[in-house]
Amino acid sequence: MTDVDYCVVGAGFAGLTAALRLKQAGRSVVVLEARDRIGGRTFTEVRGGGLWIDRGGAWIGPGQDRIQALMSEFGVPSYKQYTDGAAMMVVDGKQYRYQGTIPMTMSPWAVANLGTVFLELGELCKTIPLDAPWEAKRAAEWDRISLAKWLDDNVLSKPARELLEMAIAGCYTSAASEVSFLFVLYQMASGGGPGFVLGVKDAAQDARPVGGMRAIYEPMAVEVGRSLHLSQPVRVIEQDAEGVTVCTDQSTVRARRAVVTVPLATASQIRYEPMLPVDRSMLHQRMPSGAILKIAVVYDEPFWRADGLSGQSAAPGSAAMVTIDASTDALTPGVLCVIVEGPAARALGRMTATDRRGAVLSELTERFGASAAAPVDYVEQDWTGERYSGGGMLSHAPTGVLTEFGAALRESCGRVHWAGTESSAVMCGWVDGAVRSGERAAREVIAADALVGVDRG
Amino acid sequence: MTDVDYCVVGAGFAGLTAALRLKQAGRSVVVLEARDRIGGRTFTEVRGGGLWIDRGGAWIGPGQDRIQALMSEFGVPSYKQYTDGAAMMVVDGKQYRYQGTIPMTMSPWAVANLGTVFLELGELCKTIPLDAPWEAKRAAEWDRISLAKWLDDNVLSKPARELLEMAIAGCYTSAASEVSFLFVLYQMASGGGPGFVLGVKDAAQDARPVGGMRAIYEPMAVEVGRSLHLSQPVRVIEQDAEGVTVCTDQSTVRARRAVVTVPLATASQIRYEPMLPVDRSMLHQRMPSGAILKIAVVYDEPFWRADGLSGQSAAPGSAAMVTIDASTDALTPGVLCVIVEGPAARALGRMTATDRRGAVLSELTERFGASAAAPVDYVEQDWTGERYSGGGMLSHAPTGVLTEFGAALRESCGRVHWAGTESSAVMCGWVDGAVRSGERAAREVIAADALVGVDRG
Repeated sequence: MTDVDYCVVGAGFAGLTAALRLKQAGRSVVVLEARDRIGGRTFTEVRGGGLWIDRGGAWIGPGQDRIQALMSEFGVPSYKQYTDGAAMMVVDGKQYRYQGTIPMTMSPWAVANLGTVFLELGELCKTIPLDAPWEAKRAAEWDRISLAKWLDDNVLSKPARELLEMAIAGCYTSAASEVSFLFVLYQMASGGGPGFVLGVKDAAQDARPVGGMRAIYEPMAVEVGRSLHLSQPVRVIEQDAEGVTVCTDQSTVRARRAVVTVPLATASQIRYEPMLPVDRSMLHQRMPSGAILKIAVVYDEPFWRADGLSGQSAAPGSAAMVTIDASTDALTPGVLCVIVEGPAARALGRMTATDRRGAVLSELTERFGASAAAPVDYVEQDWTGERYSGGGMLSHAPTGVLTEFGAALRESCGRVHWAGTESSAVMCGWVDGAVRSGERAAREVIAADALVGVDRG
Repeated sequence: MTDVDYCVVGAGFAGLTAALRLKQAGRSVVVLEARDRIGGRTFTEVRGGGLWIDRGGAWIGPGQDRIQALMSEFGVPSYKQYTDGAAMMVVDGKQYRYQGTIPMTMSPWAVANLGTVFLELGELCKTIPLDAPWEAKRAAEWDRISLAKWLDDNVLSKPARELLEMAIAGCYTSAASEVSFLFVLYQMASGGGPGFVLGVKDAAQDARPVGGMRAIYEPMAVEVGRSLHLSQPVRVIEQDAEGVTVCTDQSTVRARRAVVTVPLATASQIRYEPMLPVDRSMLHQRMPSGAILKIAVVYDEPFWRADGLSGQSAAPGSAAMVTIDASTDALTPGVLCVIVEGPAARALGRMTATDRRGAVLSELTERFGASAAAPVDYVEQDWTGERYSGGGMLSHAPTGVLTEFGAALRESCGRVHWAGTESSAVMCGWVDGAVRSGERAAREVIAADALVGVDRG
């Protein structure tokens, strides 16, 4: 039985940040991670030749100050996402090339429709109080419909609709019918609006850390040091008047408080003794994760750049739904990242690995030419197979959940505290949100113990 | 290590039925139940003086042939629900007395509105293919909106709206904003339409087994015999080419196949090795249980009958949301059952036991007169505290879930098969649906083994 001040469950960015800040504040910590690796929903793999590939969360953007603070702390530089050249959109088999966020080469009607919808979403986002989106004046109304229903009623141009549905629902790695429109507005607002969420340059995909996310989480883990234990899925968290007892199959940690940083559906698989309060317990049943496949296709060089293309493309429903240039800061090799989300990811996931690779490469070849047919490496990450993520990206709220259970997202349950990007009011869903949540949880447990006069720090 | 043909997880009606039918077919079975009692979401308690009280599912109705077949098999008689006298509705502080399903004493506008909505719901239900509701012609449209949104658009009279919202959402023990309208239509259709679901006489609350549900599940358990093990929550189900290994904290069962009969959110807390297919795994994250408090208030006699009241009443948002006469087949005592569901149940559950009892009795007194103030017994069941139900009644589908994941509701995952009322196309959500699912699962595992020639029966 290890006896420490705090026990952190999960070693993704939220958990590592919480542990780091607690250690820096002089508290003793144990971090229990279920997987045999750290990083959670980020995962940088180093391939032959030192090529690093982000198999999960990868980008940073303006306003994401807390991940940037960590990068400064550990001296991790960033580099800009490659955005020169044209982006491409494929709708109904037709290819459109365009610059910027809105494909102006679509029909004027589609372009106008897209433009007004962007403006409308931006206006609606401004009415959302980030700390309590369920208190927005029209919260009840928006939480009764799915994103799909709102798009039905507001986007009449078919290509505009397809593009928007793919782009927005894609953020939640689920079908547009599954996600509450209030949750969409809240999540967009927490990043600063639709321009940030759906944009690249000066937006959510603006830059990347040199060396990938690992360049940040690895030195964090080094500082957390021997307090970090891998392959220790937490099975039970018991709490009593003095503290918590956290049990894995092999070990038991006794601490004053626990910080659980894992996605909600994963948190629901831990047994809590006594049971959690009803609202939190029911929230755990109500915020599912989605499906996402992230594939890095590596070429000798980023050949699309010479063709005047940025590497960004979107083709709703295809085997290469979204692509983006994911090359490192080096000039070679070229890495094209294919992201497939939601129902399309589940369909692609059901294929054999060979068929899937064939489908993806054939799609890329059609879009980017013959050079796309012969990659030198091909790295596939199916997040639905990650037991301890429960699927990919962020957990979403179906209709009714934020208005009924939203208040339970951050509220601690006795000595069990909650972190994870889903619990962050700012940058909810991004790595930066995870970092913020970890810092908030660290402050929260210290303050709670200071209040009752038992803090040893 | 026990070695049997089949391992059944859960000893509610689905599990007990599966085990019974398998035993009757000459197969060996082990049933593992997490609780220290059988019955699952039904639970008959015998109080002092032999008074039996159904703390969970209680009623049966026409068309529920499979629970009735079990009753014949074990010689359990039924008695009719008391329905003489007037029902009562309280809206905006005003009491209305009425006969039948629709309170005709409301304003003509409200009555007309209620009537047309009932008709409309009935018509829509007829378009739902029970085996595959996601194939209904308008399935996509209905699965994009919550019940609350449909009521917004279709029920313009305020009292009609309040009554319908309470009655329909109550079935799912959740807020109307949480439940997919397609799921509502499907669940209603699986019982034969809104008249059955929302009615009493000749409908879902038509009759009760003499002795309560225990009179049925107890002799079933006796026949299943020593194969049934209590207080054995299943932690892990492993499957390989020859069979399954089912592990609890104390024991291990080896069987050819497993039948998991617990609610979906509870099934998600079992660890499956290897992981379940993506669609089933994600379905487990997507069908939550709701909140329900069921309170039996016992009086020397059913005094309301003498006052010309049936005991049925509805008062949206109150501490006694719905009441119904729950007396046994004896003339005394009188039992009034108070049912509070969804958000109101969560609110009531947060009160102290004393305050809650006070609130309920004061509400009953206002509605039924001074005699209601002095019960001789008071039995409260808060299903949100039932760890192995995950909440109360049936799991519901939020928007998008049936169209995206519905096909996974019944489909076996290798050697792991699924039962439970949620998996029944007919009478989904009732005890009869649970029985049907158990019988279907028993046939399914036998057929699967017959197919590969390993059946020992």
